[in-house]
Order: sequence, then structure tokens, then C-alpha cells
Amino acid sequence: MKIAVFRKAHFNAAHRLYNKNWSDDKNDAVFGLCNNPNYHGHNYDLEVKVIGEVDPETGYLIDLKYLKDLIKTHIEDRFDHKNLNLDTEEFKELNPTAENICFVIWKILRAELASKFELVVRLYETPRNYVEYPA
Amino acid sequence: MKIAVFRKAHFNAAHRLYNKNWSDDKNDAVFGLCNNPNYHGHNYDLEVKVIGEVDPETGYLIDLKYLKDLIKTHIEDRFDHKNLNLDTEEFKELNPTAENICFVIWKILRAELASKFELVVRLYETPRNYVEYPA
Amino acid sequence: MKIAVFRKAHFNAAHRLYNKNWSDDKNDAVFGLCNNPNYHGHNYDLEVKVIGEVDPETGYLIDLKYLKDLIKTHIEDRFDHKNLNLDTEEFKELNPTAENICFVIWKILRAELASKFELVVRLYETPRNYVEYPA
Amino acid sequence: MKIAVFRKAHFNAAHRLYNKNWSDDKNDAVFGLCNNPNYHGHNYDLEVKVIGEVDPETGYLIDLKYLKDLIKTHIEDRFDHKNLNLDTEEFKELNPTAENICFVIWKILRAELASKFELVVRLYETPRNYVEYPA
Amino acid sequence: MKIAVFRKAHFNAAHRLYNKNWSDDKNDAVFGLCNNPNYHGHNYDLEVKVIGEVDPETGYLIDLKYLKDLIKTHIEDRFDHKNLNLDTEEFKELNPTAENICFVIWKILRAELASKFELVVRLYETPRNYVEYPA
Amino acid sequence: MKIAVFRKAHFNAAHRLYNKNWSDDKNDAVFGLCNNPNYHGHNYDLEVKVIGEVDPETGYLIDLKYLKDLIKTHIEDRFDHKNLNLDTEEFKELNPTAENICFVIWKILRAELASKFELVVRLYETPRNYVEYPA
Repeated sequence: MKIAVFRKAHFNAAHRLYNKNWSDDKNDAVFGLCNNPNYHGHNYDLEVKVIGEVDPETGYLIDLKYLKDLIKTHIEDRFDHKNLNLDTEEFKELNPTAENICFVIWKILRAELASKFELVVRLYETPRNYVEYPA
Repeated sequence: MKIAVFRKAHFNAAHRLYNKNWSDDKNDAVFGLCNNPNYHGHNYDLEVKVIGEVDPETGYLIDLKYLKDLIKTHIEDRFDHKNLNLDTEEFKELNPTAENICFVIWKILRAELASKFELVVRLYETPRNYVEYPA
Repeated sequence: MKIAVFRKAHFNAAHRLYNKNWSDDKNDAVFGLCNNPNYHGHNYDLEVKVIGEVDPETGYLIDLKYLKDLIKTHIEDRFDHKNLNLDTEEFKELNPTAENICFVIWKILRAELASKFELVVRLYETPRNYVEYPA
Repeated sequence: MKIAVFRKAHFNAAHRLYNKNWSDDKNDAVFGLCNNPNYHGHNYDLEVKVIGEVDPETGYLIDLKYLKDLIKTHIEDRFDHKNLNLDTEEFKELNPTAENICFVIWKILRAELASKFELVVRLYETPRNYVEYPA
Repeated sequence: MKIAVFRKAHFNAAHRLYNKNWSDDKNDAVFGLCNNPNYHGHNYDLEVKVIGEVDPETGYLIDLKYLKDLIKTHIEDRFDHKNLNLDTEEFKELNPTAENICFVIWKILRAELASKFELVVRLYETPRNYVEYPA
Repeated sequence: MKIAVFRKAHFNAAHRLYNKNWSDDKNDAVFGLCNNPNYHGHNYDLEVKVIGEVDPETGYLIDLKYLKDLIKTHIEDRFDHKNLNLDTEEFKELNPTAENICFVIWKILRAELASKFELVVRLYETPRNYVEYPA
């Protein structure tokens, strides 16, 4: 009886997209408005999906309060109200595209979650643009 | 041409989470507020996904009116405005966690749906907590 | 410069609608499924609207963190995961219709909020049924 | 590192469901209100999912502005504010059910999208009825 | 204790915007794509707001089941899956803009609703374009 | 026949809340995480409400395409993908709280909109926190 449990969370952050090895012109051509040197920002919505077997004693796959606290401690407290490029270790060198943020969040949660569970992370940068890892 | 068709439905119900083989203290520790002996409740949102081949004469995978009526008769009429623990056969002995409710709904619909179709059920207990079977 | 600030919150609760001075038949005729003696439940969504003048030093009408905490302490902690009929003082004698719950929440918050502010409360019983006080 | 990127779009159109090889009675029996000879209509919401590898130089799977423009040129400009049965080549002979519209959109976008990407299209005919291809 | 109660409903319809006293060129200039002679369509979402006093015996402003049935009989059954220009008396001569549809719905419901209630109708033509009468 | 027409729009921006006349400690105490010197950001959702009389020839209160373009030119192009504190004239001296942003947007649109119309602006900073001017 493999089942999936989902939990939603969110954080607000500033970011700028650019590649420091490129000229300003190339960065503008590729990243457009997202390359604003003074940053812009988003309300990021996060959907964490955990897959596994239900515990017959509790009827739970995973305690959602535990999962909620895990996301709060390791993701929301780390990224909420931050400038991703300046205030976080993860994006000092890595371009904070939605794809890279989603993958970084997956790696952080993967390291915290018991190995018996599969994990999928979906990240909404806006209600119209979002990414999911792994596909 | 395998395609999926989705239909949404909903029902409102009361429930209480607990394991009758456990002490009150253990039930409180595991289920917290959800173990309120006087029950609490939810607006459950249901998403039913049916997978199969499109009929070339109708252009339908399945008649959505038929699927809507199937869900109404077998799920909404059974669970809407009920106390899951007290008013339903299914949860007299089974803890009505979102995982178990989702699995019970899947089993009920699976028995009604033609075997040529695959079936996936997603159940939202709140907009932030939801489950899907099979994963 | 009169402006309005809104904050959303939510709680999950069980309830039953009935008038103890009426016969069972009359209660069934008026309240239908909502009169289930074993209760049913909802995810209640709450929208609190505060109207007043902006403080020129802060640019705030009211600190939203203060408003969020006020709602949590006085509304969410009181009603979340409760049976409104059995577990709360407010609805021991008062029928917990959406109208009455909305009015009770307004009275509780009105007593806590500085008198310079106007207050409007909207309560969603489901995404399709909701009420607002005062109109 | 296989990841999925999603982009939402929408268009408004009129349509009528029927099979020209059938009698009026059979069309009414199968398609009901959707067989209104004078048409009815929908706000179609489209979710386009592209799966592939992230480019390490940009941190992008695909430039979302490019994907947005692709959907605008090939889907929105073709179907928006149209009568699907009368104004489009695609549905002159093909019944414009949600299943067929979804499949047609998938074929159009598949022909435009680089072959290294996988493609999934979800089409919402209403918030409660939607389809996805491939399943 | 004046309170407002809201009920949501929806219908799907085709329409065309034009003024029969104008030239084709003027109709195109003013109504653009909405003047497609073969019609286009929408999922119309309706929000009906009723204002009045709560009945102390029931705790209801108005029985929401009664209001739901009123909207179904007088609005949904009349306009759902219809071509507003061709299939309805109301829009044979009147241009079916969102403004006019909203006003027509208000007039129909106003005639059915007890005079002790105030009535406001909001009509969503799309999630981004909507109207409300009276303002 | 006074009616209201609504149009939604959105922009993404970075900002920081602080009062330059205050000490760092006071700014932290009042604005908390929102005072991050490196900025954070939001997806701002905007709802513009225009009130007036319907033109009997068009059935329009105001051409929604005109209103959409007005919002794009004067609000979205000015604030989208910007750092409100650094990149805009309006918030060089004015603290970019939701209240102040809402009021600034109202003033900009008020100057553009014909005087026969009333104007109300609602600004969502997050789905749970929003403001409206005038109240």
C-alpha cells in the first residue's frame, strides 16, 4: 500500500539571476528583467511529497506535524525573508533559478528524511511558473 | 493514446484520530489535537483520476457525468455530513486518517469502475495537507 | 487616508445545527443533514478586516504580526480542532451556524482591538458558503 | 538531474460536442447539454509540463519566456476567442472534447519543442473537470 | 445585527459582443476578439450576496439550501450550456457584456427574493475580469 | 445603474521595511525580518476596482482592454522585477509597506482615470496579507 502525503509551505525571498562568468550584455540577453542588479522577489510556495507505506498502528505514512516542523526548521527558517544571493550559503555560487532552488531544497530535505521514504519537491515561483524534482 | 481524466468532488465530515489499543496518554502524544474525544471536522476535497484509452466515437475517456454520479452515489452520499468514526461502517475499526480515508475511497470506486481503467484518488484534508493513492 | 488591512486565518471544527426547543422532526426539516446528532465538520477560513489610519512613522495601519497573534490566541486556539457545541462556552446555548460563529468571532476580536479601528469579519464555512459581519 | 518545469496559460472558446454520424437523439443521449447546436463555452486553463536536464550555465531547464511565447503563438493565438468547431482546422472533423483538445495541443507543442524534452499537457475545461496527456 | 451571506454558483455559456446598429468595422474596433461572429465562451462564476437580519430561532439569515436552489432554478438552468445571444430571451436585444449579464441576474434574483433582503451580485467572466452590481 | 468592474494584475518586486530616522534596534523591533538590509521580495497581486455607469451603446463600464493596458503601462512596467527601495522614485523616501504601495498605486491610477469613475485598489502582499484603499 504505497501512498503519497503532501505538505505545503511558503517563504518570501529576493533574488537575482546572472552568471558571473558572462558579460553584462549576455546576462541581460539571457535573464532579462530577472538580472536586475538590485534584485526582485517572490512568494515561493513549496509542495513536499513523501511516498512510502502506511504504519498500520497509526494510519499515518508520516506525522504531518513532524514534516511541517522539518520544513520550517530546514527550509522556511533558512530562506524566508532572505536575499538568496547574498544571505545564503547555497546560492553564493549557484544561480538561484527556480530549478536550482527546487533541487537545493530537495537535497536538504533528502538528508533529513528517513531513507525508507521517497521525496519529491515542487516549487512555485509564481502561480504560473513552477518546477518539480525529480521529474 | 493513454490519457487521464480528473473529476473533483467534496464532502464535509467530523472525525477523531486514535488507536483504541493505546492509552489516552499515548493517543495524545501521537495524535495531539486530532484526538479530541468530541471530534473535529474538515471540508474534504476529492480528486478522482481515471486513466485509459479515448473512445474514438465519442472522444471521451469516460462520461464525466457518469463519473460525477458514481462519486456522488458511492462517496458523497456515504460520507457527507457524517461522523466518520460513528456513522460509517468503514471507520468503525479503522482510524480515519487522510491516508486511510483515501485508501477506502479508492477501494470503493475501484469496485465500481470498469477494470479497463486505472484509478488514482487524491484527498485534501486541508489545502495544505493531502494524500494520494496509489503513489 | 482610511485604509483597510486584511489577515487570513483558519481552524477546523465539528458542529451540529439544531434548536433544542424544537422537535426532532422540525430540526430535521430546517437543518437537514447539518442536524446529524453525531456532528460533521468544516475547515473554517477566516478573513479579518481592520480599517483605520496609517501611522506615518511606520507606514502600517496595524502590525500584521500583532494581528496574526491576536487571531491565533483568541480565535484559533479557542476553536481549532474543537467540537463547537460541546467544547466551547460560546456555543453551548447558541446554534453554531456560520452567521452566529462569525458574529461571535467579531465580538471576541472587537473586545481586543483598539477602539480607533473598525472591524469586519468574514467566515468561510466552505469555499461556496460564507458570511460577513457587519454587512 | 531530470526536472520538470510548468507553465500555465489560458484561452476562452466556444464548442459543441456531437458525432455527425449519429442521429440527433443519440447525440442528445450521449452529450446532453454539451450538444447545444448553438454552442456553449469555457475558460480553458492549460498547464504545460516540460521534462529534461538543467543547463549548468543558466540553471534553466528551458527559458520560461520562450515557453510562454511558444504557447502564446501556437495555442493561445490559435484558439482564444474562437469557436472550436467552426473557426479551427483541428476540430472541423474531430469532436472537441477536453480529451481531444488536450491531445491536439500536445501534438502542436510536441512538433515545436526540441526532441530532448518530454512534454505533458493538462487542460482544465472547468475547475472540476480536466484531462492530462500522456497519462 | 445586519449580516451578509454569500453563495457561489457557476454556468458555462457562449456569447458574442456587438452592437447591431454599428458597422462591422466599428464593432471590431470596440469589441475586438469578443466580436467573433461564431461566438466564444466562458465559465461564468457567480457570487450572490444577501444582506439582512439573522433569525434568532434558526441562527440563519437565509436557508442556504433555499438560496442554492433559487440560483439553480432561475440562473443556472436558464443560462448553463447556452448561447446567450441565441438561446435566451434576455440577450436577444441586449449586448451580453459582463456588466449586462450581472445586471440581468440581479434583476431576476431581486424579483424572487423577499424584499426584506438586500442583494448584491458579482459575476466573474474570467478569474481576472469581473463585475459587481450594485456597486 | 452604478456598477463595479474589477481587473487583476501582478508584479514581482524586492523591498525592505525601515525608517531611516530610527536606530537599527528600533527598526528590528518594529519591522523584524522585513528589515533585512539585503531585501526580500513578494509576488504582489493587484485588484483594481472601477465604479461608474454603464454606457448603453457598448454595455461596458470601461473597456477592460484599456484598463488592462493602463495598469500595465503605469504600474506593472514601473514596479515589476524592481527593488522598490532602490529602483523607484516613489519609495526612495517612503517606506514600501503594503499600505503605502497600495496608496501610491491608487494615486498613480487616479491621475490617469477619467474623473467620472470611482477607484478602489486592493493589493495582496501574500495570499494571507492584503490591503485596500480607500476603505
